[in-house]
Amino acid sequence: MGEQSRAAEKGSVDFVPPSLCRRVFSRRIAVEAKAAILADVARLNVLSMVARAGSGHLGGSFSSLEILAWLYLQVLSPRDLFFSSKGHDAPGHYAILSALGKIKFSLLHRFRRIGGLPGHPEIGFPGIHANTGSLGMGISKAKGMIMARRLAGKKGRVFVLTGDGELQEGQIWESLASAAHQKMSELTVVVDHNKMQSDTFVSKVSDLGDLSAKFRSFGWTVARCNGHDFRALGRVLGRSSRQSQPLVVIADTVKGHGVSFMEHTSFDSDVEEYPFHSGAPDREVHRRAFAEILERLNRRLQRLGLGSCPLQPVFLDAPAPPVHLERLIPAYSRALVSLAARDPRLVVLDADLAKDTGVLEFKKRFPRRYFECGIAEQDMVSMAGGLALQGKIPVVHSFACFLASRANEQIFNNATEKTRVVYVGSLAGVLPGGPGPSHQGVRDLAALSGVPGLVVLEPSREKEVEPCLRWCLRQNRGPVYLRLASVPFEAPPLPAPRELAQAGRGWRVLKGSELLVVTGNPVLLGQAAHAALALKRHIGWSPALFSWPWLNLVDHPWFLRLVPRFRRVLVLENHLASGGLGDGFARILAGAPNPKAILHRLVVPPIPPSGWNHEVLQKLGMDHGSLAKKFAALGGKPYPRKDSRH
Amino acid sequence: MGEQSRAAEKGSVDFVPPSLCRRVFSRRIAVEAKAAILADVARLNVLSMVARAGSGHLGGSFSSLEILAWLYLQVLSPRDLFFSSKGHDAPGHYAILSALGKIKFSLLHRFRRIGGLPGHPEIGFPGIHANTGSLGMGISKAKGMIMARRLAGKKGRVFVLTGDGELQEGQIWESLASAAHQKMSELTVVVDHNKMQSDTFVSKVSDLGDLSAKFRSFGWTVARCNGHDFRALGRVLGRSSRQSQPLVVIADTVKGHGVSFMEHTSFDSDVEEYPFHSGAPDREVHRRAFAEILERLNRRLQRLGLGSCPLQPVFLDAPAPPVHLERLIPAYSRALVSLAARDPRLVVLDADLAKDTGVLEFKKRFPRRYFECGIAEQDMVSMAGGLALQGKIPVVHSFACFLASRANEQIFNNATEKTRVVYVGSLAGVLPGGPGPSHQGVRDLAALSGVPGLVVLEPSREKEVEPCLRWCLRQNRGPVYLRLASVPFEAPPLPAPRELAQAGRGWRVLKGSELLVVTGNPVLLGQAAHAALALKRHIGWSPALFSWPWLNLVDHPWFLRLVPRFRRVLVLENHLASGGLGDGFARILAGAPNPKAILHRLVVPPIPPSGWNHEVLQKLGMDHGSLAKKFAALGGKPYPRKDSRH
Repeated sequence: MGEQSRAAEKGSVDFVPPSLCRRVFSRRIAVEAKAAILADVARLNVLSMVARAGSGHLGGSFSSLEILAWLYLQVLSPRDLFFSSKGHDAPGHYAILSALGKIKFSLLHRFRRIGGLPGHPEIGFPGIHANTGSLGMGISKAKGMIMARRLAGKKGRVFVLTGDGELQEGQIWESLASAAHQKMSELTVVVDHNKMQSDTFVSKVSDLGDLSAKFRSFGWTVARCNGHDFRALGRVLGRSSRQSQPLVVIADTVKGHGVSFMEHTSFDSDVEEYPFHSGAPDREVHRRAFAEILERLNRRLQRLGLGSCPLQPVFLDAPAPPVHLERLIPAYSRALVSLAARDPRLVVLDADLAKDTGVLEFKKRFPRRYFECGIAEQDMVSMAGGLALQGKIPVVHSFACFLASRANEQIFNNATEKTRVVYVGSLAGVLPGGPGPSHQGVRDLAALSGVPGLVVLEPSREKEVEPCLRWCLRQNRGPVYLRLASVPFEAPPLPAPRELAQAGRGWRVLKGSELLVVTGNPVLLGQAAHAALALKRHIGWSPALFSWPWLNLVDHPWFLRLVPRFRRVLVLENHLASGGLGDGFARILAGAPNPKAILHRLVVPPIPPSGWNHEVLQKLGMDHGSLAKKFAALGGKPYPRKDSRH
Repeated sequence: MGEQSRAAEKGSVDFVPPSLCRRVFSRRIAVEAKAAILADVARLNVLSMVARAGSGHLGGSFSSLEILAWLYLQVLSPRDLFFSSKGHDAPGHYAILSALGKIKFSLLHRFRRIGGLPGHPEIGFPGIHANTGSLGMGISKAKGMIMARRLAGKKGRVFVLTGDGELQEGQIWESLASAAHQKMSELTVVVDHNKMQSDTFVSKVSDLGDLSAKFRSFGWTVARCNGHDFRALGRVLGRSSRQSQPLVVIADTVKGHGVSFMEHTSFDSDVEEYPFHSGAPDREVHRRAFAEILERLNRRLQRLGLGSCPLQPVFLDAPAPPVHLERLIPAYSRALVSLAARDPRLVVLDADLAKDTGVLEFKKRFPRRYFECGIAEQDMVSMAGGLALQGKIPVVHSFACFLASRANEQIFNNATEKTRVVYVGSLAGVLPGGPGPSHQGVRDLAALSGVPGLVVLEPSREKEVEPCLRWCLRQNRGPVYLRLASVPFEAPPLPAPRELAQAGRGWRVLKGSELLVVTGNPVLLGQAAHAALALKRHIGWSPALFSWPWLNLVDHPWFLRLVPRFRRVLVLENHLASGGLGDGFARILAGAPNPKAILHRLVVPPIPPSGWNHEVLQKLGMDHGSLAKKFAALGGKPYPRKDSRH
């Protein structure tokens, strides 16, 4: 999801400027033809936005583009509102808004960059009416908007686009019941029913069954149509619901629509991984996809006497990948399989992120012990609770941002039963910076800090992953949250520890004086190690550097023996100010009679910057260059004018 | 919910010893007659348990007793499992388990007491297989149990009882879809469809519509019957589902069944408050209800030649109510109405706790601006987000324990939109001690500590409520969490402040030296004030006492000017160690070069003790007696042998 290596190759990609659509819209041609052109122009720009950003969602953008094109050209009046609940179709939505002149064309070149367009929708841009990206909230938000508009006596409809995998979220069904109860005929929900969720076919994950019957049983009027057929869309979207009921349009679509080899229908029904949900394709795939769409678009333009599609090249400028690269997810995947082979009690649960969380290999090896729960984190976590009560050791997977917050109450409830459940939150920390605040896991420790008996562990080296997981499964008897960074990171150019540090203690990475630097995160450890080594080279001094995997455990007496050797302690946290390691240190230091050392912290703001990984680190002062300066300042040392590494 | 005053009157209540049921079960009489006797014996004991405890749930226990009696007598085999998802029927379940000899009779006398039976189910007692009380998790847990049993090759069915209001929780629908997908024919869900949720009729809150059609559309086999008719229950519960589908039995029941004047059918359909959902009735109501059940039971016993029902009196020993009593919820209710009258943007949302959260008066006065959302906290919070995006100021209500955790992700999402939403979490803190850890709001601040820009305010006096709410609505532009203690509390015998303290500052309640005591909670402020005044009387010394309503804001420079006047600072938190006021102080003191004062904290453990309020405070060392000792010790003063207040 956050990898930027494939897009890092040099070259350029082509964008279609808005002039084409202005020209097309001014001609007297059928609206269906205009919509088809708009959708394909958006497809081309989406391809290039994702290529340039190095990440983004193609499949779910492509499936929805005819729906969006038709809504904007033919349905939405100035008093109507539209927004997407699934949110990862944001590139498609931006491309449409740009073609319509609603947002600046140049913003498309800055997709998923600081100061550019965010990875998931955020208000503050014209045409974006809600922050989405965490699934299942859109219908509820739309209802709130309608309640406000009713009070203000405003007319108009509110349209919400949802995914189909998204329908597995419980909030969707909460929202449906009361929409019917409140007779919200102003509300139209369009389900982009592209049959595929993040990993694979919806029907394989948790079959939706008779979707029309479900919506009808919740009191909704249901219409169904081909979501790529403008006439069909016109028939169902043109009018709101009769009978004072909200309307749902189930739009049958194809994930990856518009590029033959990306369409889900070109994959076997037993495919384990649909490859075009997220991430940037490599150059060759990009080129083929672009060519196929462009050829179709040009044919249509020429048929209508509109010439050919103008293209504007934009250079790729993604940064070079890190040097001493390590990746925790593959290491986790191996550790999981190896430990599972020796303990039949171990079972795995996942919420439609099997590829990203590294459990595909486990699934292949132990299919009976693998439970795909779909996008239903609450259900997954309580199922884990039931499994644990019956003697299993469930290992539960999702992204840190969703697991810690959506299933917060369920994790607490399991913990009150004092069973052993291992929660694995990947995509933890501020990186990848591309997807935006909805996906940046920087508040997981805060959200989980009230869970009784929960131990939080974060490995910082590939070699530390197996010992961490082994501790969770064999030594610990209660719940653990295993926090995993998903981005490839620049590791310290030093040997990794062979074993896990003793509970509540860190391990020394570098000797030093005056300043003790502590971090529990691999990205920050790598940056800090490089900063400290650079200082050592240039001024012959470095702070002591400790890696601290126990994010909510501090061996109190040991810590109070360690600290007085330093004048200052600096904690680097890939997390916001509360709930992390620094809070544990602060409690001890504030309560100790003679702490001597002063505590400093470098933390992530609760709404973190979003952009390329190196941009985000720089913005936060967490790149090795900024850290070296900070270390020198806190150590009371002169900072060298130039770090030779630059 | 947590009030103990009505049961505090002296006297005794009668319990039915298990000898009666042993005698009945040994006779050769129809199982339906045995079940009817078991259900009514349980009813009598539930009445006395709740009277003795001073709190508990009558209505939802009574509606489910025929179902439980039939399950235990006729359906459950040793390899089956049964548990209740709604959980507030715990007194009924305990009474059945006791009558069957599975748990000790004497435990019934210690319902909702330390060392006794918890207010909601907790594992560790025979026959209790899961911790429940926070709604909607039961079916998920049962599925996990079934997954484990399948792996172990175990046979047997798993039965889960749910409420009908509980079906508004989104997790229910998450869990239904995957149960069908996994063909869980071992699973039988019984819906205690008593038509009433916490406040009023389910159909008024969020109508369930065609419930059978809903379950069928999710792939379940559906049966429906009268839940008080044993033959009907026998027909549907005796066999599991055919066709590899899970089975749901919709049992039509009557809330309060078995006591004519408690039955929901005896109330008008437009009743705003069903009075027997929770809480202990007064003596006279108790007496009438008990007499009605006893008379019916005795008639039945005599008809069967079984003599009459033995009764065992147990003295009531509830403590005397506090002296300088204040209550925040009524004060909040008045403030809300008064501020709403002057600001038409203010709208109110509630999740089926209108009575407990104090919004009934608002609802009466401003019906169009009031939205009852049902037990669907996620939907409620995202609707509030939509309302705020359209210019309203939504004030969102639930209990602290549920609001902060179930809607955690939705509160975060709203906060990223930087709109003004006021979240009001009542029942905050460790009291009332009766309902148990699922309802004791002591981790709300931790769970919310990662929400961007959220200000947390807790008033400690009735007179402080209006200024707090006024600040949220008029001065602040972002989100606020207003934390409200629901229990009546012993206030300091001193004047309350007329205005809210400046942001990030506390206000001085008592002058003193050596030790600075700070708290942001009304219960602890009252206890601390009494402790400090007692010390002043007896040894002529007291610590300084500050009340601090800004739970996550500290005016850094002001605080660092205040603190050096003292040798020690003690923070009293009605919350667990992380996320509260003490963390804010610790961050400043640990980072300051010369803090001088040492920080001490008194906090609640993450699984707090559960029992009568005064018992819980004593257990935590938070009653005024324990606090006086602690103050003296930290102040370096001799503690007087006897506090004359005792």
